[in-house]
Amino acid sequence: MKLELIIIGNELLQGKVQEINGHWLAGFLANKKIELSRINIIKDDSKLIQEATKRSLQRAEIVLLTGGLGPTEDDLTKQALTDMFSKKLIVTKHSLDLAKEHYQRIGRNFEDANTNYEKIPEDFFPIRNHVGLAPGLRFITADGKLVLATPGVPREFYHMFEHEIYPYIEKNFEMNKKIKKILSIRTKDISEEKIFSQLCPHLWADLSQFGYVSSLPQILNVDIGVQIEYEKESEFQEKQEKIKKLVNGTKLKEYIWHWGDESLEQLIVENAKAKKIKFGFAESCTGGLNSERITNVSGSSSVFWGSVVSYSNEIKTNILKVNPETIRNFGAVSEQTAIEMAQGAVKELGIDIAISSTGIAGPTGGSEIKPVGTIVIGHATKNGNAYAQTFHLHGDRVGLKRRFSQKALFELLEQINRY
Amino acid sequence: MKLELIIIGNELLQGKVQEINGHWLAGFLANKKIELSRINIIKDDSKLIQEATKRSLQRAEIVLLTGGLGPTEDDLTKQALTDMFSKKLIVTKHSLDLAKEHYQRIGRNFEDANTNYEKIPEDFFPIRNHVGLAPGLRFITADGKLVLATPGVPREFYHMFEHEIYPYIEKNFEMNKKIKKILSIRTKDISEEKIFSQLCPHLWADLSQFGYVSSLPQILNVDIGVQIEYEKESEFQEKQEKIKKLVNGTKLKEYIWHWGDESLEQLIVENAKAKKIKFGFAESCTGGLNSERITNVSGSSSVFWGSVVSYSNEIKTNILKVNPETIRNFGAVSEQTAIEMAQGAVKELGIDIAISSTGIAGPTGGSEIKPVGTIVIGHATKNGNAYAQTFHLHGDRVGLKRRFSQKALFELLEQINRY
Repeated sequence: MKLELIIIGNELLQGKVQEINGHWLAGFLANKKIELSRINIIKDDSKLIQEATKRSLQRAEIVLLTGGLGPTEDDLTKQALTDMFSKKLIVTKHSLDLAKEHYQRIGRNFEDANTNYEKIPEDFFPIRNHVGLAPGLRFITADGKLVLATPGVPREFYHMFEHEIYPYIEKNFEMNKKIKKILSIRTKDISEEKIFSQLCPHLWADLSQFGYVSSLPQILNVDIGVQIEYEKESEFQEKQEKIKKLVNGTKLKEYIWHWGDESLEQLIVENAKAKKIKFGFAESCTGGLNSERITNVSGSSSVFWGSVVSYSNEIKTNILKVNPETIRNFGAVSEQTAIEMAQGAVKELGIDIAISSTGIAGPTGGSEIKPVGTIVIGHATKNGNAYAQTFHLHGDRVGLKRRFSQKALFELLEQINRY
Repeated sequence: MKLELIIIGNELLQGKVQEINGHWLAGFLANKKIELSRINIIKDDSKLIQEATKRSLQRAEIVLLTGGLGPTEDDLTKQALTDMFSKKLIVTKHSLDLAKEHYQRIGRNFEDANTNYEKIPEDFFPIRNHVGLAPGLRFITADGKLVLATPGVPREFYHMFEHEIYPYIEKNFEMNKKIKKILSIRTKDISEEKIFSQLCPHLWADLSQFGYVSSLPQILNVDIGVQIEYEKESEFQEKQEKIKKLVNGTKLKEYIWHWGDESLEQLIVENAKAKKIKFGFAESCTGGLNSERITNVSGSSSVFWGSVVSYSNEIKTNILKVNPETIRNFGAVSEQTAIEMAQGAVKELGIDIAISSTGIAGPTGGSEIKPVGTIVIGHATKNGNAYAQTFHLHGDRVGLKRRFSQKALFELLEQINRY
């Protein structure tokens, strides 16, 4: 069973907003029995909405439109679907009750509003919106295909799909028999080109006997995926064991940092929890990004104690107790400073492991010896270890911050695993 | 002149990777004389690539494919284009030189590689890749349309489009005469529904005389856009003045925090620079996100001094010097604690303005009095002001962190403007 997503909104094509509903839906459906087979992002234009919907209905069993259900005049989805299926906009008891209920939930009077939320195309069903005001729409075509429309606001989209639409599909449609799930082999410190053309030239073919193989360069790492089709979890486990045995027999083994889909942040929190390790950061050039990433993990507060974002040198010396002489002699971006930052963080934050990062994210501030992209990652532990290492990476300011942070978190994972 | 973007990659439909090239391109083309008219995200499948390319060529003058140019077997774009235009894969002097040059740049030997980067479809031109190994492709169809292919790695995509493709189009194709630029009216503390159905019911129609109007709910704010078409910058300025006069005559005036496209972070850095204000954060529930957002702005280091991410109470008391009694009596999530956090940050970080944030991002840790979504934002200034306020917001953990952070940065902007 295929689902095509049509995302409607000029703002997405004008650079005003980063599209995220598609990514969320892709993640939600990844291990489920519906395949997200295509995403189209189109303009707020009734003809384009109709044309795209028709085309998608030729290819997929489910077509989901998101966006354009709001109350303003650039919201055209409802009218486009009404025209496309030659319907009229009507008010039913159900649609009126639902519109009222949504207003009641936020303590506002529906009669004062003027949003037309109570109107739906005839033969369509309104879908409850638990967190916003605009109802969704659901319709079954003459040849049994499902057309859905939801608001584009991410929170409303997520909630409506997860709690209203997916359960409805599960109950009323025959799903695919097999689950397609990707086994992820996560490597670092090696490029895609090197893996497949030099290190393991036969790996691709060998892995392909288990399913569709893919290779995905990420930030400072490459994820290799094998898509495994199965009905029972035991079939997946069995294939996974065979693949592990195969891969661990190759030179790739030493580059693998994880088998599976957990993010680096999740893995850090899990492993620190298991060892009851408290950690934190002394962040200069990463500017808070390491902490921000870790605190996105639910439950991180039991192992992540806190950080000092020491953008200015005064904070490095006053709070992290870096010796001002060290900065004067070696510079703020130096292994000596990075070590003292990490040692200071261990002591001042009261933690077991601290990772420090000091570098030059640019665009200005680089020199010949320490160009933009220079990053020093340091670590210190409560039991007295301390070390720092310098790397040179590429990218613009935001890209470099992400690469710097990835280096820092890989270092943290290693220190936790060793501790 | 319209451009359609076709993004190729299973990983984007499987939730493995968040698509960002489309957003980058939309931003890049926003004020230029090419319109990004559609984005399609499709699977790694030669037939789908060909079908999508054909369809896009019917609607647009330029079709840009991104992804699937790498060295592995799931990279199908080059072969798909070769088949679609009934060409053969060949090696030209130009394509061979370029492939060698790319390897030379990273200090590796092309002869050892086995990536087929030197092969291109006949009559195609290879495009230089300044930051990666895979060349791009360029081709003009029989009816004069332009087909382009680039690697999908964001850094390579950005660089190739900006430095190779866009200059080529500018030089060789006739661009649109008029620029379409959106004038953004940025509001906060009011919903889209309230603005257009209650506060200013005629605003939409009034604004529409100047160009296409749009309304865009963002995180805790609504952006209203008016798309203005113009040839000379003076025409844009003139219309902008008229719109300002119109809008400032309505009740919407007091909800506007900015006219224009600068991000909240950029505006904060600019305004702080103009007033020579040093600021920083005491971040608890925002977990570093405030600092991370500010440090994405180039030049922020002249005004952003640093932060303390005080996830644990010990860091609040030891580093930010919050009185342990305050936490005991009122709780870590309280206006009293938030004020002391901000005051501590002003003193310990040596700054003029500090913003503190303490709250409950969930999913656990909520109570009846302080449910998940509770956020206290505090501020303190060097000249002795201090205040805190409690809000209740909605969302999941990551969504709440973003809303909390938005509240904190809006508060910071206000404090900078008042200082």
